[in-house]
Amino acid sequence: MIGFAVPVKSNPHFYPVILAGGRGTRFWPLSRKRRAKQLLALDGKQTMIQQTVARLMPTASPRRFWVITNADLRTPILRQLPKLDSRQILAEPIGRNTAPAIGLAAFLLLRSDPDAVLGLFPSDHVIADPEQYRATLSKAVEIAAAGANIVVLGIRPTRPETGYGYIEAGAAETNGSLRVRRFTEKPDLGKARQFLEAGNYFWNSGMFLWRADTLANALREHLPNTAPLLDTIAQAFGTRNFAATLRRLYPKCQKISVDYAILEPRSAKGEGQSGIFCLPSDFGWNDLGSWTALHEHQVSKSNPPDHTLVAASGSFALNAKNNYIHAPGKFVAAVGVSNLVVVETDDALLITTLDQSQDVGKVVKYLDDKKLLKLT
Amino acid sequence: MIGFAVPVKSNPHFYPVILAGGRGTRFWPLSRKRRAKQLLALDGKQTMIQQTVARLMPTASPRRFWVITNADLRTPILRQLPKLDSRQILAEPIGRNTAPAIGLAAFLLLRSDPDAVLGLFPSDHVIADPEQYRATLSKAVEIAAAGANIVVLGIRPTRPETGYGYIEAGAAETNGSLRVRRFTEKPDLGKARQFLEAGNYFWNSGMFLWRADTLANALREHLPNTAPLLDTIAQAFGTRNFAATLRRLYPKCQKISVDYAILEPRSAKGEGQSGIFCLPSDFGWNDLGSWTALHEHQVSKSNPPDHTLVAASGSFALNAKNNYIHAPGKFVAAVGVSNLVVVETDDALLITTLDQSQDVGKVVKYLDDKKLLKLT
Repeated sequence: MIGFAVPVKSNPHFYPVILAGGRGTRFWPLSRKRRAKQLLALDGKQTMIQQTVARLMPTASPRRFWVITNADLRTPILRQLPKLDSRQILAEPIGRNTAPAIGLAAFLLLRSDPDAVLGLFPSDHVIADPEQYRATLSKAVEIAAAGANIVVLGIRPTRPETGYGYIEAGAAETNGSLRVRRFTEKPDLGKARQFLEAGNYFWNSGMFLWRADTLANALREHLPNTAPLLDTIAQAFGTRNFAATLRRLYPKCQKISVDYAILEPRSAKGEGQSGIFCLPSDFGWNDLGSWTALHEHQVSKSNPPDHTLVAASGSFALNAKNNYIHAPGKFVAAVGVSNLVVVETDDALLITTLDQSQDVGKVVKYLDDKKLLKLT
Repeated sequence: MIGFAVPVKSNPHFYPVILAGGRGTRFWPLSRKRRAKQLLALDGKQTMIQQTVARLMPTASPRRFWVITNADLRTPILRQLPKLDSRQILAEPIGRNTAPAIGLAAFLLLRSDPDAVLGLFPSDHVIADPEQYRATLSKAVEIAAAGANIVVLGIRPTRPETGYGYIEAGAAETNGSLRVRRFTEKPDLGKARQFLEAGNYFWNSGMFLWRADTLANALREHLPNTAPLLDTIAQAFGTRNFAATLRRLYPKCQKISVDYAILEPRSAKGEGQSGIFCLPSDFGWNDLGSWTALHEHQVSKSNPPDHTLVAASGSFALNAKNNYIHAPGKFVAAVGVSNLVVVETDDALLITTLDQSQDVGKVVKYLDDKKLLKLT
């Protein structure tokens, strides 16, 4: 189906900030320290971070993008995103979780644009309907720009998923958003079913929008020791002292997620006082959290549903169904096996099940512990 | 345990004839047309045919060995058996099953040694106790040399195996052999259990001993059209016409196994008249008929029994047991999987179960049908 492009209402103060520091160990052996999940073409020809940038490109000029990552991934990301300047890709000298990372972005933007609106975007999710996504985003930017608001894109749940955090929403605003009552950790299946039925629960997409000054003020309030460090680092940006300042001060920032640092204390103030709003969204979001999630995503995309998807150069299945097999360049023969995940690289072979693929991170932990660094 | 070598009573008329024309498709993807099962080092450092020759070496001088194979395998076999002369390795121009192959050996040997005793040996079995094997063989050669006898080594069964043919034995001879009542096809589990309990059933090892003249006469009786063709081919051996004669006449031989051509009609004469004798044997024989048989063999050899044998460069198992995994040069991670067979080569990946590995031949059939010749 050919659709008409929805014109994007571009806000001249909108800056996409892409968080790309994760390691994505659950996609081992394809993912490695220097080839994290966001750098993999798990679904389509573009890598996850390339897709992330491509779908945001119509919303802001390339110069307004920022990527925050780590030292291992900075160079590979630079290569994958030729439209961005190397100065737009910041590498944390050491991981401090999300609060300092996005705080730094806020202080940096405030230097040049007091009305800057930050959009925070994970770099490793898929979105089936980019036009719907940009339409939702456009509205979210508008709400965020209008005041000291924090806007989170809440995904309307389609199943009782136990792998995601949820947002409990309250009263509706006239702008189409809902007040956020609270953020909930991953629920068990019973709770997830209740959430689905209740209708006012949304999946937390990890995509947030707020003005840079709102974020800077929140950091000053909730992380009073960290905020001035980030401000000092931001002041050095563009000078020859920047790298040294970042290396010296960033490790002193508190290691804490934005959820724990800001969102939870804010939402504890109550839905009328928190200033956090959920914009219900419906654009085919999937965080591809494991090989199994990727498998299900690809099965759902195939029409008619194809449960024997194999990434290989030819295959033969006999009494075999619903397996995820990745062995490029090889002929794959599956005989009498079901619900398996098999992933092969030049140096490693993973064999697990669709039920247990979330435990693949434990393989990486073992390799880390044994200092088998070539494999991690 | 260090044992004392049992001196082998070498019979100067004994000629080991090794049948090496099989394709062994059940070891795909390791086995291929030009790298059949007997050419693989499935169990130990030597290949199956090298082990076969090595364990027979103390029984006859190298010049008395014969290998019968096909055109695809002749050169690789020659390379693996440097002690044999190229003239000792015969390639059938076309497969005619076992009767013509061993018949040709009989007529060849009769030219130079009217008292020749042939031992027919599959080239792809393992034998745990070679000294016991040679002691049994020595006795068998003696019985075969003594008259128009056909001696088969019958393996004392240790379990109700449904994958082997059985020999039903009758009265005992003074020389330690038993008269053969009949040969039985692979039984179902119920029958196999009866056979095991009855005590007079033995696994058919495929190892037969008979005088060359006994075999030649049997061929003249049971395959009257084929016998003269083989005789003519044998007469040309050593002349420059040999290759052309073989190419011209061999395809005209009847395509039939020695079991159907000679052993069944002979045993139908009744245990007193057949001239077939079973020598009960107990030397740790295994025909390694599938990946599963190989797995069980290797598990049984490990002490204490190790069910997580992995041929790889390192491995990690989490909630995984009893898998056969062959991926040399790779690090293997098995998470939550059991009873699988996974075998990887440069160009192929097989994923099956210990229960269904005997169906791997069907993969090769598919590849043959699709003319994916590089993979077969």
